[in-house]
Amino acid sequence: MHPVDEKALVILSGGQDSTTCIFWAIDRFGKNAVETLSFDYGQRHRIELVAAADVANYAGVRNTVLPINTFGKLGGNSLTDDSVEMPNTVSSEGLPATFVPGRNLIFLTFAAAYAWRYDIRNLVTGVAQTDYSGYPDCRRATIDALEETLLLALERRMTIHTPLMHLSKKETVLLAKELNAMDALALTHTCYNGSRPPCGECAACILRARGFAEAGIPDPLVNHSG
Amino acid sequence: MHPVDEKALVILSGGQDSTTCIFWAIDRFGKNAVETLSFDYGQRHRIELVAAADVANYAGVRNTVLPINTFGKLGGNSLTDDSVEMPNTVSSEGLPATFVPGRNLIFLTFAAAYAWRYDIRNLVTGVAQTDYSGYPDCRRATIDALEETLLLALERRMTIHTPLMHLSKKETVLLAKELNAMDALALTHTCYNGSRPPCGECAACILRARGFAEAGIPDPLVNHSG
Repeated sequence: MHPVDEKALVILSGGQDSTTCIFWAIDRFGKNAVETLSFDYGQRHRIELVAAADVANYAGVRNTVLPINTFGKLGGNSLTDDSVEMPNTVSSEGLPATFVPGRNLIFLTFAAAYAWRYDIRNLVTGVAQTDYSGYPDCRRATIDALEETLLLALERRMTIHTPLMHLSKKETVLLAKELNAMDALALTHTCYNGSRPPCGECAACILRARGFAEAGIPDPLVNHSG
Repeated sequence: MHPVDEKALVILSGGQDSTTCIFWAIDRFGKNAVETLSFDYGQRHRIELVAAADVANYAGVRNTVLPINTFGKLGGNSLTDDSVEMPNTVSSEGLPATFVPGRNLIFLTFAAAYAWRYDIRNLVTGVAQTDYSGYPDCRRATIDALEETLLLALERRMTIHTPLMHLSKKETVLLAKELNAMDALALTHTCYNGSRPPCGECAACILRARGFAEAGIPDPLVNHSG
């Protein structure tokens, strides 16, 4: 039995980064102290939730799915709105067309509420500043501010771990290898177009492929699918 | 046409405090610059959303309802969970049994996302430290921290106005009278038991009645219903 301050909740999208975070959390807190939380928020590709369940199952940790039916009603973003075309590049306004304002704040705040209920004091998220400069709520400064807000709001300190924050995609791949997470990465989903095998052409596929190439490691997802 | 920094979004529950905030916002920003946002979050009493629509209609401002289906799945609180008995007092653990961890953070963060989308820079909420010491996310310190978090997360300053923060219930009633909001208060809903006319016996009814009594003003809701 772990003390409450050593239980950890990993926010799991089913992608490469959050999957790597599971193995980081297991390495740090032990498998029995780790569980995962996913959000059914109207993402275009249900395959993400399937990947999350598969990854958690493979890792031997619990996966809870919380519904959020709010983002769709906010409208105007390509990750939940079919009328918006998927971008392959960052928009001219500086923010990616995939930007849902405050989405990570919402995910982390709901995760904190869940953690509060189950006496978990550590949240783990795969957000990263490197490669993701268009998402201001993924920056460590935002995470730090949120930690303070949560401490005041819940009267309990929730530590938000961001093990990938300052890693390049290459370094994230190397970390996954070091943590023996490569087989789990074969189960993840990254492609913006929801394809399996991945389309290889969207911004997410290209970014992922570049990371593996720079790390000199074949992507087990591509091998697995091909 | 108001400049974007003078539009305001009032978070409207349909209760006495948020209704008073509409009139505060109209007084400050002008009726054409004010709209309201309510949340359909699985509250036990749908009458709250009816009251919100009635109040907004009476005030002549728009009311948008955003759904949030997440709290029910977090479980264990009496405002959304029928299996938990309604408290008439604060629980022995210090926090009211009506406590939903982080609920106000979620409401405000979604409101900020909505405001971001529609170029609104002012949020108005009726939370108050006085009389509500059991809800740590209603304190001004929490609101201040959230403002900083939102600034970092959205790269846009959202000012969160809390006109009732340091007022007693009596002072809130006097403010409503000063703002000519008394007729609107006849349309509000306060009772924890969802009764109309109000039960007069739950903690919410007692608190409301005390405020009007101390202000020396009859409650138009009670008169209206009786």
